[in-house]
Formats: sequence, C-alpha cells, structure tokens
Amino acid sequence: MATIKVHGVCVSAPVRRVLLCLYEKGLDFELVPVDYRTAENKKEPFLSLNPFGQLPAFEHGDVIMFESRAINYYLAQEYADKGTQLIRTSGKEMAEMLVWMEVESLHFGSVFRIFSRERVFNPLKGLPTDTAVLEESKAKLSNILDVYEARLGRSKYLGGDTFTLADLHHIPTIASMMKATDWKELLDSDSRPHVRAWIADITARPAWAKVLALKKDQK
Amino acid sequence: MATIKVHGVCVSAPVRRVLLCLYEKGLDFELVPVDYRTAENKKEPFLSLNPFGQLPAFEHGDVIMFESRAINYYLAQEYADKGTQLIRTSGKEMAEMLVWMEVESLHFGSVFRIFSRERVFNPLKGLPTDTAVLEESKAKLSNILDVYEARLGRSKYLGGDTFTLADLHHIPTIASMMKATDWKELLDSDSRPHVRAWIADITARPAWAKVLALKKDQK
Repeated sequence: MATIKVHGVCVSAPVRRVLLCLYEKGLDFELVPVDYRTAENKKEPFLSLNPFGQLPAFEHGDVIMFESRAINYYLAQEYADKGTQLIRTSGKEMAEMLVWMEVESLHFGSVFRIFSRERVFNPLKGLPTDTAVLEESKAKLSNILDVYEARLGRSKYLGGDTFTLADLHHIPTIASMMKATDWKELLDSDSRPHVRAWIADITARPAWAKVLALKKDQK
Repeated sequence: MATIKVHGVCVSAPVRRVLLCLYEKGLDFELVPVDYRTAENKKEPFLSLNPFGQLPAFEHGDVIMFESRAINYYLAQEYADKGTQLIRTSGKEMAEMLVWMEVESLHFGSVFRIFSRERVFNPLKGLPTDTAVLEESKAKLSNILDVYEARLGRSKYLGGDTFTLADLHHIPTIASMMKATDWKELLDSDSRPHVRAWIADITARPAWAKVLALKKDQK
C-alpha cells in the first residue's frame, strides 16, 4: 500500500483535523513538515499539491488532495472497515450526519476563521485586532451553541447516536477556542450542560491525545 | 413513497441549488413557499425544520434536513440509480470530487456570500455597500478563477471527467454574479477560456432552464 503523506505542521487546525481522523482510523502516515514561516506553502512544489497554498496537502499514491474535511471523508469512506466507523452511508442516519457536517463547516467554521484571524494570526503578524468583529463572532457562536444545546439534548452526538465526522471536525477548533478565557466561557457554560458534556466527551478521545502528543513533539 | 418537500422561494440561491439537483435526478417534489419578508423563516414551525432560520428546509418522510449541499449529497446518494449520476463513490474519482466540492463551499462560496450581502441584500434593506470589502472579494474571486482555469485545462469538469455536484453547486451563484457587469467581466473573460467554456456548458443544462422557469412562475 502506498504511504499516506500529510504535508503540514500541527500548529494548523486543519492539519490536526486530518491527523485526528488518521489516528481514529488506525492508519499509518508520514507527516511532512512545511515551513509556513518562509512561505514554503506559497511556492512550488507545494502549490502543485494545493493550488490555494493552504495547509494541509495530502498524498496517497496517485490521490492528491487538500481541504481537511474532504480528506477525512475520503479516509472514512475508503477505510470504512478500519478503526472507528466515522460516517453513516444511507438513509436518515446519513442525512443527519451530512447536515451537521455542513453546520460545522459553514456556521461553526466561519466563527472559528474569524477567531483564528483576529486572535491568533493578526497578533503574530503585528496587525491590530478588530474587537467589533470579534464581538459579533462571539454573539454568533452563542447562537450556534444554543442550537447545539437543543440538538444534543435529543441526540448524544451532533450527527446522531454515534461519534462521526460531524463531531470530529469540531475538535481541533474547539480545543483552540477553549484556550481563550472569554471564548471558553461560552463553550463551557452552566447554561448549556449538553454542549459541555459533548465537548468533554469528544476531546477525551485517545486519538486526540495522540494528536496533542505529536504537536508537542513537533515543537 | 413520501413526497419530497422543499420549503423556500426561488429568490434564494441555496433553494435554487436544491431544485436544480431534484430536476437533474428527475424527482417529483412540492415547493412550499416561505414568506421571508414577514420573517416566516425566523419563527415556528419553520425553526423546527431549520433551527438557523435559513432557506431552504427539506422534508422527505421522517428525513428533515437543511443546508443545500447536504440535501443534494443525500439526494445524489439515495437516488444513485435515478437521473443524472451526480457523485463518484470511491477511490481517486471520489477524492477529486470531494476536494472541489469543498472549494466551491469554502472558497467560491465565501466570495458569493459577500457579493450577495453587499450587492443584493444590503441595497434591499437600505444599508450601505462596503466597496472596500467588495473589491477585496473580487480580487479573491480572480485568484480562485485562475485556479479553476488551470484545473479545467486538465479536466472537463471540476470534479473530474463528468458533471458532478462539484459543478452543480456553482450554477445558481455563478448565474447571480453574471448579472452584475463588473463581476461578469471576471467570470466571462478572454484570459480564462476554460472557465468561460465550463460556465457556458453547466448553465446550459436543461435542469437549470427548469429552475429558471419555476422562478419566473413564482414571481
């Protein structure tokens, strides 16, 4: 079998998302570091792997991919019989999983992208933080979490009764947000007991501990 | 078989995206109008279908969904043997389709969401248009279309050799942008012949003509 290669570094949330899926599936892989500080990802040969110059890129024989969620869906489908079953493939169960995967990507994800830009990357680049935009995003997150609280009161996981990609895709971004005290207050709140229990559950998975260990090693 | 119900109006691009998929699959459906001018979508019973209050919502027996791309994936998978085959389900072919579906949703889609807010909804609401944000989005679109041009030089469709959801999901948003002269200049440019041919091809599909006819009827 061709080696699975992930091009990227653990500081990137989308890279951690793919590594998490690989650990859940029990698949061997090689992590190929990309030096984003020298903009290695904005030059060839990286651009041949991902023309948008973003981390991660993924290689598996002649399969070349980018976009963490697409990579994870591919892994979950191609290795359906290995490790944790991460997708549901038909009927109502599939429908629910697909809806909440989209919610993560478009609703939760759009808030995270603002958080990440304003709280992580702009400070690193010496750029100012737009507090108005951040406050607007926190209000959006609060609304999203109210929807999650209602959903998780009816269903153990977002995508249904079992853990799927709909949950997994949240883990690296939630873990980053939890490090910021004022964002943690929203995610870990008495007013949303089901969200709190869900976050505790999904971030306690052994595969996530492996990602964090790899991140520590890479520093 | 339970009736497929789409709750929404054709003025919404995500509603048109779902209708387009239904026509491609040759599936019967009922379009249930939602009066967004009186904020019917922000109240019950609509919120029980989509807690985010956005169009469309979808019902098929006990399957209740929202998010247009999730609905289309469900339809393409559940009705794999009906109408146009819109997804690829294994190996390298699936990998390519998944990547370009994500590109549509996160890259192209994020530009469209700015276009739609600044050029369509803000004027309707009497709010000012942020020209700096619009110009930034046009620059982003230009970069995205350069990537598409390279891709479409190697592959007839974004997702591979055949038309898939990766192409279909662009049609309603591209058609909206083409109505704005300064955006059409980017999409329909001598410098990107493959993009031009691809847009001409996908917007000429009979299923899209049916969506436009339905939109006209609904006015």
